[in-house]
Amino acid sequence: MAQSGNSRKYWVGVDLGGTKILTGIFDERFNCLGREKVRTKPLKGWQEVTERIVTCVMEALEENGLTLEHVNGIGVGSPGSVRAETGAIRFSGNLGWNEVPLQSELTRRFEVPVFVENDCNVASLGIYEVELGAKPENMLGIFLGTGIGGGLILNRRLYTGRNHTAGEFGHMVIDMGGPKCSCGNRGCFEAFASRQAIFRKIQSAIKKGHKTVLTDLLGSDLTKLRSRDLRKAIKKGDELVQSVIEEAAGHTGIAIANLLNAFNPEIVVLGGGLIEALEGTMLPVIERRARDGTFPGAFEGVSILASKLSDDAGISGAAILASQKMASSRANEEAKL
Amino acid sequence: MAQSGNSRKYWVGVDLGGTKILTGIFDERFNCLGREKVRTKPLKGWQEVTERIVTCVMEALEENGLTLEHVNGIGVGSPGSVRAETGAIRFSGNLGWNEVPLQSELTRRFEVPVFVENDCNVASLGIYEVELGAKPENMLGIFLGTGIGGGLILNRRLYTGRNHTAGEFGHMVIDMGGPKCSCGNRGCFEAFASRQAIFRKIQSAIKKGHKTVLTDLLGSDLTKLRSRDLRKAIKKGDELVQSVIEEAAGHTGIAIANLLNAFNPEIVVLGGGLIEALEGTMLPVIERRARDGTFPGAFEGVSILASKLSDDAGISGAAILASQKMASSRANEEAKL
Repeated sequence: MAQSGNSRKYWVGVDLGGTKILTGIFDERFNCLGREKVRTKPLKGWQEVTERIVTCVMEALEENGLTLEHVNGIGVGSPGSVRAETGAIRFSGNLGWNEVPLQSELTRRFEVPVFVENDCNVASLGIYEVELGAKPENMLGIFLGTGIGGGLILNRRLYTGRNHTAGEFGHMVIDMGGPKCSCGNRGCFEAFASRQAIFRKIQSAIKKGHKTVLTDLLGSDLTKLRSRDLRKAIKKGDELVQSVIEEAAGHTGIAIANLLNAFNPEIVVLGGGLIEALEGTMLPVIERRARDGTFPGAFEGVSILASKLSDDAGISGAAILASQKMASSRANEEAKL
Repeated sequence: MAQSGNSRKYWVGVDLGGTKILTGIFDERFNCLGREKVRTKPLKGWQEVTERIVTCVMEALEENGLTLEHVNGIGVGSPGSVRAETGAIRFSGNLGWNEVPLQSELTRRFEVPVFVENDCNVASLGIYEVELGAKPENMLGIFLGTGIGGGLILNRRLYTGRNHTAGEFGHMVIDMGGPKCSCGNRGCFEAFASRQAIFRKIQSAIKKGHKTVLTDLLGSDLTKLRSRDLRKAIKKGDELVQSVIEEAAGHTGIAIANLLNAFNPEIVVLGGGLIEALEGTMLPVIERRARDGTFPGAFEGVSILASKLSDDAGISGAAILASQKMASSRANEEAKL
């Protein structure tokens, strides 16, 4: 692996999503110098996706007058379950992947150290370091989008558990007899409060004859429904959408109460497309239900807030992950000497 | 506070329960030298309970030829929610307490440092240090008794969160529309799998005309029902009890799957009266349901086992808590110099 001393002072953060790949270039203080975006096209297979990641990173570097020679390390946030030892993607429903050697393949291509971690873990780290200035001791990140994921900062460090699968809050069962979830279980938090769950609920209400402005906006099949359409509908006084979103917020509050009872962190940060579009409607309901559901004392001094970082959470978290991983492997090597 | 140097090499651990107070005397290596037990009698008020703790500790010391002059520190595990700063009991349903200054009162009485912590946190620490030899990095303790509580060891340390309320797994909602819980919510894990929940289920089945040998053993009101009676009934081939216990084990498996998805520790240790009596019936069901409910990869290398420590978990954990608290306050003082 080529090394050229002090010129390597930049970090690259990659956020690999089901529809798009985002890349950011960061300086030593994790200021973002530039961003790049390409489509993921997961149906073309993992080799093609890897290729697209490489293209996205190279373009971002080039636009900032940099090459891989200037890069210290690259962090990647990926959907799904990531193997701790190898950075391979064990499984991702979102990408349709099983056992994809993403970290080793990217390391081979870039000839720079690459670190792959679950996307919600990475985004939680980004929010913690950039938005909260690494001040709280413990934080939960919860991301409401197509699916629901989460991440944990405990004792000021990203906590990933035995198999790097900690933070899978979306598959917490909150209603045993509830609707079927994509994971095979029933009544998971994700089966109530993800965009997909909300979409299904609205569709089934339409079939039952309920009226909504969404059909005027998008046609009766709603296939192009996005979180911002839900906000538009609520602004237009759409009662169906309002009640479906409030219900999803109530379920989110129950899930957060469960997590507060278990972890009792001082802060819960919400992110993801649904929260970005619907914070005003959802956050008050979430907070009330979470407060009602926590054990006496557990809510004291606890705050629940919506992240303002949006897409920057993932890319900055990935860059910070790379720097932390390299610092800890350096510390381990020094301890051996 | 009197100090006499090297003679202070013993630790005292107290396990304050709803029905009994247990005390253990421990040497520097946390070998238990002797135990003492008195009834709690919580209805007589907290001053009387404090008095009974003092009596129990003094008797245990005396039986081992020791006095308070030989004691380094005293740890106490108490039911309920404990204030981090003061060691006061914020709330305990079990004891009927609100804002009881237990730590300061015991410190005043003993003139030795006293540390109060939630009983399940303390028992988890005892299991982790004594039974597991502090080897795993992360552990969950779950205790099934009259109620359900838990404790967390993360990165090899007891983790208590913002308000010392972490580990309240019993109030995790697993079935939103489920039975009412003592906490006011519906469908908490505790409302399905605690001894009280099992008791209610059996009583209601009896009212509906189901047969059980328990009524032969204990009379029709079952008021004296204990966990060991449930085991006896199962041994006699009692189908009602068998199915109620298996159902409770299934709910426990769902709750553990939720926790594995969130924390992904390498080990879950079960304790409490129900598990001690019914491990053989419950553990296989718990394990199967937990495995089925976890996210792909999260169960790899994870084990679920039943603690063998029984009553010693609480008293040894309390003694270890006192030693760890004193070591960390010493470290803080040294850092200030």
